[in-house]
Amino acid sequence: MKVNGVTIEDSFAEAFDIKIARVLITAYDYEWALIAATEATGFGTSIIMSPAEAGIEKKALPEETPDGRAGYYIQICHMSEKKLENQLIARIGQCVLTSPTASVFNGLPAAEKKFDTGNKLRYFGDGYEKSFEYNGRKLWSIPVMQGEFIIENEIGYTEGVAGGNFFIMAENQPSALAAAKSAIQVISDIDSVITPFPGGIIASGSKVGAKKYKFLKASANEKFSPTLRSVVEDSHVPEGVEAIYEIVINGTTLDAVKKATRAGILAAIKIPGVVRITSGNYGGKLGKFKIYLSELFKN
Amino acid sequence: MKVNGVTIEDSFAEAFDIKIARVLITAYDYEWALIAATEATGFGTSIIMSPAEAGIEKKALPEETPDGRAGYYIQICHMSEKKLENQLIARIGQCVLTSPTASVFNGLPAAEKKFDTGNKLRYFGDGYEKSFEYNGRKLWSIPVMQGEFIIENEIGYTEGVAGGNFFIMAENQPSALAAAKSAIQVISDIDSVITPFPGGIIASGSKVGAKKYKFLKASANEKFSPTLRSVVEDSHVPEGVEAIYEIVINGTTLDAVKKATRAGILAAIKIPGVVRITSGNYGGKLGKFKIYLSELFKN
Amino acid sequence: MKVNGVTIEDSFAEAFDIKIARVLITAYDYEWALIAATEATGFGTSIIMSPAEAGIEKKALPEETPDGRAGYYIQICHMSEKKLENQLIARIGQCVLTSPTASVFNGLPAAEKKFDTGNKLRYFGDGYEKSFEYNGRKLWSIPVMQGEFIIENEIGYTEGVAGGNFFIMAENQPSALAAAKSAIQVISDIDSVITPFPGGIIASGSKVGAKKYKFLKASANEKFSPTLRSVVEDSHVPEGVEAIYEIVINGTTLDAVKKATRAGILAAIKIPGVVRITSGNYGGKLGKFKIYLSELFKN
Amino acid sequence: MKVNGVTIEDSFAEAFDIKIARVLITAYDYEWALIAATEATGFGTSIIMSPAEAGIEKKALPEETPDGRAGYYIQICHMSEKKLENQLIARIGQCVLTSPTASVFNGLPAAEKKFDTGNKLRYFGDGYEKSFEYNGRKLWSIPVMQGEFIIENEIGYTEGVAGGNFFIMAENQPSALAAAKSAIQVISDIDSVITPFPGGIIASGSKVGAKKYKFLKASANEKFSPTLRSVVEDSHVPEGVEAIYEIVINGTTLDAVKKATRAGILAAIKIPGVVRITSGNYGGKLGKFKIYLSELFKN
Repeated sequence: MKVNGVTIEDSFAEAFDIKIARVLITAYDYEWALIAATEATGFGTSIIMSPAEAGIEKKALPEETPDGRAGYYIQICHMSEKKLENQLIARIGQCVLTSPTASVFNGLPAAEKKFDTGNKLRYFGDGYEKSFEYNGRKLWSIPVMQGEFIIENEIGYTEGVAGGNFFIMAENQPSALAAAKSAIQVISDIDSVITPFPGGIIASGSKVGAKKYKFLKASANEKFSPTLRSVVEDSHVPEGVEAIYEIVINGTTLDAVKKATRAGILAAIKIPGVVRITSGNYGGKLGKFKIYLSELFKN
Repeated sequence: MKVNGVTIEDSFAEAFDIKIARVLITAYDYEWALIAATEATGFGTSIIMSPAEAGIEKKALPEETPDGRAGYYIQICHMSEKKLENQLIARIGQCVLTSPTASVFNGLPAAEKKFDTGNKLRYFGDGYEKSFEYNGRKLWSIPVMQGEFIIENEIGYTEGVAGGNFFIMAENQPSALAAAKSAIQVISDIDSVITPFPGGIIASGSKVGAKKYKFLKASANEKFSPTLRSVVEDSHVPEGVEAIYEIVINGTTLDAVKKATRAGILAAIKIPGVVRITSGNYGGKLGKFKIYLSELFKN
Repeated sequence: MKVNGVTIEDSFAEAFDIKIARVLITAYDYEWALIAATEATGFGTSIIMSPAEAGIEKKALPEETPDGRAGYYIQICHMSEKKLENQLIARIGQCVLTSPTASVFNGLPAAEKKFDTGNKLRYFGDGYEKSFEYNGRKLWSIPVMQGEFIIENEIGYTEGVAGGNFFIMAENQPSALAAAKSAIQVISDIDSVITPFPGGIIASGSKVGAKKYKFLKASANEKFSPTLRSVVEDSHVPEGVEAIYEIVINGTTLDAVKKATRAGILAAIKIPGVVRITSGNYGGKLGKFKIYLSELFKN
Repeated sequence: MKVNGVTIEDSFAEAFDIKIARVLITAYDYEWALIAATEATGFGTSIIMSPAEAGIEKKALPEETPDGRAGYYIQICHMSEKKLENQLIARIGQCVLTSPTASVFNGLPAAEKKFDTGNKLRYFGDGYEKSFEYNGRKLWSIPVMQGEFIIENEIGYTEGVAGGNFFIMAENQPSALAAAKSAIQVISDIDSVITPFPGGIIASGSKVGAKKYKFLKASANEKFSPTLRSVVEDSHVPEGVEAIYEIVINGTTLDAVKKATRAGILAAIKIPGVVRITSGNYGGKLGKFKIYLSELFKN
């Protein structure tokens, strides 16, 4: 299929189930909310060696936040429920509780499953903390140096999707990168999804395990390495492609991940020099979800 | 002592020894270097519950980088040598190796102690990686999707200083916060130091342990909580102070931490509404270093 | 009236009629669109001595732009139709035609009145320019160094509103400023309005003419100068107020200006230290529009 | 000549003499200084149709500013002394006097020529303004809504250089643009120079006059238009070049412009896809200065 003159391969992205907690951080303004959100979601690219997958979802307008302040939604993701809870405690406790003017609310108030993260963190108040009700939410106020820190008693989490993805192939590196950046900026306004890698982009895709160094859990995917096109057998790098970037998308629903994939591809293919879009999978054997690129562009 | 009309308490900051690795990240431009640096140093505020203390030090001009590109220095800190090495591998492997156009160099080439982080990460190349020499540095080139990833074989680390600090006390929260932000911006240009907390600022200082909840390693320092001034005995919050922010500074040398402390305080006291500067210590019993505020403003 | 504990004076903002052209700038991504938008709207605070009033309205999502790229709407305003047209030509010709990857579209396609700005600027192509139709819009393609520059033949303008405003009074300067910044960030997402001053904020309000220096068209409004509270007669600065910032809002409709005023005030009053909100008028004798603050908070 | 594998043409940039005023703006922090600087230098790309050429030079560290606050230097340029003075008054009066927490100082204290801009703007105080001496500088304090506005009595200006330039030619647009952006970021730290175009970059270079539309002062330079390579005679676009961006540099000294040209080129040629660097001139007949590219890379 061709869209905007760019070939979109008849491929599918293989995505996985993961547990996702969604946290709403508000502050004086978007800038301070973003500072807390950035620190709290850092070192959170891939579960392979990061303690969690984490990212900033999108702005929360004042009219949608419990305290009427500007904010950001963040998502923290893990396969393990226990580790997800630990990550919530550590990341909120270390990176939001300490962040100027930040408050923490449940970003998934309708979720059935909840961690009592606020209840665990309120002990930091050492007995001076107080609970109160506000618009049906149970909140804690903890006296701190800046005045007080507000956190909701519970944070919701849900069964979500990890590893939605697409690959941008271009005739050179700046072209692939401009396309990836454009895609990420568009995805950053879409509800319910994050792109956990640095700037939302992956420069170095991996395969499961390794051919030579057997002790590795993951290694570079040489079939997608442009400099190895003439070296490895069955390279997936088309002729004329000098650089590839991958966008990985996690989200609380499959539909949101699909929507983000489509919007990201549409943005990417507008950049000159982009020649091909594809997606990554493991033959459909590992992941629970398949996102067919062709299906996204039917209408 | 009064400087610019603001009282600077005759106090001292008690700082600790810590091991600090310094990494130089270069990229297409400062923006892409900053993206890698931000992801790699996130979730890195305090060793209490973060996997490391980490922060962005300052810009590296093209004339001081091995590849002549723009960059940023970052620091990753831990008490434990083993954990520091693990953090280097995980943070560079997950957050810089994956980041568009980023390369990694030893940020402390004169350091005696080194981790062979580059050598460990090069296995990601699964046999396709190659080493080469450049200006006396041993580098690895790993074929990846974007083209190649360059990393130096070894990263230096040193015995540094953690927990240099000062407190900004102001008549209200926006005043204290504007002062803290101003201080951080000035410190961000100073060589050899980082301010690991969100936006460089701590909204919620802690004390060791807890009075009520004995199971805690750290809890809110009620003596520095403005809302508890009339509640707790011997509160350290002066009358008229409604908000306090703390700046914590780590650095590879004590002199650098002192220089940053002085520059930060000078910036902070220019903001209207700031009434007092002090610093935090534990009576001098825990930390190896004492930074006397009065000494910083002698000349 | 009190909202969130802050007094909102029973005052009204006196606003004026002005002609407003709305331009849609698209580019590779929001960042490049913003760079063009920023240059094109600079030096555009007040018609008193700026060549126009100008500002960035809000992001244009890819799904609402003719070329499916990310963008920003900007507004350029002038009392004089002729000068407005000249400003459009000069600002687009100098600041958007020259800006990387930027394209220019009519931001008010339903407007009855239009300037043929694109038609005038296409002469820059020196005969190599070409027109084409796209989705009912007449566009010009001009060959330039980067490749081509796309501009719509006509740009719409309308009778709009200038000088909607409110004043934030606070117990000190950082508090008033944090409130103003918070207000501006919220207003920046609202449709159809701009805040033309630096960062959207005015530090130095003016009165018409002058008392002492008769040759001036405008001078500082001493009745709103906190340092002159005890010096001038009938100061409007309440006791305890040390700083005032004004937000000025222009918009293509009165309703939009009202909506932005309300949203801005709601954001401002959440910042500690803000004690009073009021608005500026000339007794209702000069401006065509009156925006009563009390009316905004009825529901 | 080849540098880093990229051809640098044996060409020269033809630059012109221009009068340059240098203004130092300080504020609470770099962010607020930048907001004032951005507004004051907007709509200031080329003297052809902008009221001035203007740009942000670089950060001013607290230790080099008269009030010890963070700041930015800006430059405002015009051929005409009278128009330069008018632009200073209008841009500072409209865009800095109104900007939160901004103060204005003479950025060229050693300059022989000075405008008494501060003295002219102080009339805004309507009689409440006061002068005072500080470290040998005569300053004015004007009571305004935020408190006070500080401006130095005189602003220095000098005979400088306009139109230093180089062209980046690349195999596609994203590559040329990434190179231009990288160059601009490096130049932004260099003393005494500005790059007045949007984001520092020109997408559409011009020639003097026009071939077809004789009424034009300037029109697109078709010899540097990649899409016209096979259409126009003696195109200067080499085969394989799809996009060109130009960097224009103004500066208070010729040496500074040379230094910036060199640093910018060195940054640009590190971006993949860049194939050629050249510079623009008019045969040496119009401009006072010639900057030979080959001379910059002798050592």
